Amino acid sequence: MEVDATQRAGRTTTTQGDPMAETSRYLLTDDQVPTSWYNVVADLPEPPPPPLHPGTHEPIGPEDLAPLFPMDLIQQEVSAERFIPIPDEVRDVYLLWRATPLHRAHRLERALGTPARIYYKYEGTSPAGSHKPNTAVPQAFYNAKAGVKRLTTETGAGQWGTALSFACAQYGLDCEVWQVRASYDQKPYRRAMMQAFGATVHPSPSDVTAFGRSVLAEHPDSPGSLGIAISEAVEVAAQDPDTRYALGSVLNHVLMHQTVIGEEALLQMAMAGDTPDLIVGCTGGGSNFGGLAFPFLREKLAGRMDPIIRAVEPASCPTLTKGTYTYDFGDTGGMTPLVKMHTLGHDFIPDPIHAGGLRYHGMSPLISHIYELGLIEADARPQRECFAAGVQFARTEGIVPAPEPTHALAVAIDEALRCKETGEEKVILTALCGHGMLDMAAYNAYFADELEDHEFSDADMEAALANLPQL
Amino acid sequence: MEVDATQRAGRTTTTQGDPMAETSRYLLTDDQVPTSWYNVVADLPEPPPPPLHPGTHEPIGPEDLAPLFPMDLIQQEVSAERFIPIPDEVRDVYLLWRATPLHRAHRLERALGTPARIYYKYEGTSPAGSHKPNTAVPQAFYNAKAGVKRLTTETGAGQWGTALSFACAQYGLDCEVWQVRASYDQKPYRRAMMQAFGATVHPSPSDVTAFGRSVLAEHPDSPGSLGIAISEAVEVAAQDPDTRYALGSVLNHVLMHQTVIGEEALLQMAMAGDTPDLIVGCTGGGSNFGGLAFPFLREKLAGRMDPIIRAVEPASCPTLTKGTYTYDFGDTGGMTPLVKMHTLGHDFIPDPIHAGGLRYHGMSPLISHIYELGLIEADARPQRECFAAGVQFARTEGIVPAPEPTHALAVAIDEALRCKETGEEKVILTALCGHGMLDMAAYNAYFADELEDHEFSDADMEAALANLPQL
Repeated sequence: MEVDATQRAGRTTTTQGDPMAETSRYLLTDDQVPTSWYNVVADLPEPPPPPLHPGTHEPIGPEDLAPLFPMDLIQQEVSAERFIPIPDEVRDVYLLWRATPLHRAHRLERALGTPARIYYKYEGTSPAGSHKPNTAVPQAFYNAKAGVKRLTTETGAGQWGTALSFACAQYGLDCEVWQVRASYDQKPYRRAMMQAFGATVHPSPSDVTAFGRSVLAEHPDSPGSLGIAISEAVEVAAQDPDTRYALGSVLNHVLMHQTVIGEEALLQMAMAGDTPDLIVGCTGGGSNFGGLAFPFLREKLAGRMDPIIRAVEPASCPTLTKGTYTYDFGDTGGMTPLVKMHTLGHDFIPDPIHAGGLRYHGMSPLISHIYELGLIEADARPQRECFAAGVQFARTEGIVPAPEPTHALAVAIDEALRCKETGEEKVILTALCGHGMLDMAAYNAYFADELEDHEFSDADMEAALANLPQL
Repeated sequence: MEVDATQRAGRTTTTQGDPMAETSRYLLTDDQVPTSWYNVVADLPEPPPPPLHPGTHEPIGPEDLAPLFPMDLIQQEVSAERFIPIPDEVRDVYLLWRATPLHRAHRLERALGTPARIYYKYEGTSPAGSHKPNTAVPQAFYNAKAGVKRLTTETGAGQWGTALSFACAQYGLDCEVWQVRASYDQKPYRRAMMQAFGATVHPSPSDVTAFGRSVLAEHPDSPGSLGIAISEAVEVAAQDPDTRYALGSVLNHVLMHQTVIGEEALLQMAMAGDTPDLIVGCTGGGSNFGGLAFPFLREKLAGRMDPIIRAVEPASCPTLTKGTYTYDFGDTGGMTPLVKMHTLGHDFIPDPIHAGGLRYHGMSPLISHIYELGLIEADARPQRECFAAGVQFARTEGIVPAPEPTHALAVAIDEALRCKETGEEKVILTALCGHGMLDMAAYNAYFADELEDHEFSDADMEAALANLPQL
């Protein structure tokens, strides 16, 4: 995507009549909101390994996915097209909150005393308070278009469940959410948000699915996991011809929908007159990170810029930095296709850390592949350090971040402090994928000095390897 | 404020190349954010009655307020100037989130099947999630400019305390908040937000003030009230020369700071090509309502438009619709000046309804005066009806409203349904002063069918009248 002088002319100024005043927020007009999603697969030096059928271990075809997804999404999942047009009906809903702002973190920079220039792309202005509606809306739309009546899904921190509930209400679909038990109990506000949008919410493991009952029989007090909740949602969708399943991260089409973040950020960085030297985002399933990074990766592969792109994950759930790159199931029950990804094993149940959106045993196969190609870096951080970064950010920039993006903020702040020592005027771009207003219990734990920083151990790794599927 | 063709040209379109597509969000550029606040006093047919000294019952002078407020704010409180310039240091912070969007509620209109056109000015994109930072920021700025080190305040629902905590962090001030006990216990997320911004939070009544201890001695289990919390915050501020007090509503300068809402909305309604027939906002202390309504009232008084302007309050705390217009204290302890307002009596403790921001015994003296002049109307609604409106709004427009603005939404929806019967194409503008993400416990109570709708009774009124100050 070329950025011309006309787009630069959209640059905002902070005070009338004072063009030299510092600009802290870069906005776009509605007609600058992307009209296509970007499919990074088209530009990779080699395609990602195919998903395999869980029974035959042969590459799956579109028909294998048909019980779970509508054909439009299946085609997007396997597409090699570079750009896929965004339907008007989806873009109309995007325009309820998009384009989202890009901020220059002047106040944080001053507090750090750094010569680095820090930018953050803020997705917290969406109805769900995060980036998740970017894919929830098209997923709900394509399902409604295919005549589906109900969507099922899982949710960990609650951001995804909230987003899909919102999206289903927009297109008149029923929505049924399995919320990880620990989150269900700790986050009644999240449940109420989903109910406000009209969704039905079950704690997971639940007694409404065969898989949930099997888990409860063995572990009546199971805190649940994303892998278990996925199995439950998939089980219900697969049994009802009017029901399909929606996933909030991991899959190719989900990451593709999120590229609206990066496409907007490219325009906004051009308005700011800066090119990123470092792009940093948190990774759970990978959708927020991929959404920001992929359009910049395209520019990097085309030689138009050369940013370092870094994924940051929790030290207690370090899929990219410590996981094994192999074929594994996306869910705990082994109902999904086998996908090649960095994984801690599909029956790994992470410690109940507060960045619930990052507690997934695997990593997006696309992110995993790109990491193996050496196109991105990875880092892992403990949660106390991340919350400290979040508090520093709130007191300077005025936004209380969700626990997930504080992982990226911790790295951004580290880099900015390194620049203070070296004098480098590095340009850092980070993904602030949501605000923390529904995650304040986590901040309460931080202020009460109750956070525990578990590290993923060698014993965890041994257990993970022992349970990987044998191909 | 004149709106010319250039400003209309800023109209947004929803899809590239399709100028006829429906526009649902009207945005402004940074240079369209107001550079002055509007002081409605300058345009009223008669000035509001003066505040009286609580001891002498004589009109107070600026020096009487000096222990509580810096001189810049005192001058704004008594000013007769029509426009007061917004300092650059304040406007720079406003630009972290302003201008806020004006939305056309196409989706709600379709759900109602109404020919009415419904617009809402949405203040939930601010760091605190409400309109409160519009005044918190200038109040913190003027105090910092005057060399003040610490601000004290009260908070009911928590929106104001959050906003002032954010603002104090921006200017390096300490912030100490007395949070109404019922809210402190029910809303730990709110407390954590304030702590994230660096504030100290006490439950009110507290044992750190003489007044708090006196209340606790008589009522150890007191749920608190805004009036009690104000007394505590005022007591601490009055005793320390480096500390001042900040109020989140009620006062003239607070309502004036909020007029940035209405000034932006005037430009945005012009972009939409519509003139409001009805403007409706919720009222607790009156700042959100006044902020939207006053610039439109100016236009009405000048004969440039003729909207009906209506304030909506909870049936259980109906200051305008059932209160007495007389001199009363702003706080329960009788430490503030006497102000002429619609009041339920300064020792009235409202039922613990969920729209905590509307549970104040009095009404802004300025709103009260304007109501007595016949320039605005008032209505009161029970909370179940308001939550039902909030849920309908969330499922159509995608934003879960705070409990407070659902009172205005209930009236807007009623009017729109009346238009469905009459066929009138009425233009309705409402103030969506915040989102409900930190108030989801209230929605949980609604979904669990646990809300109780108390009405303000004749016995309540008798008790209120018996305790009014005798002048």
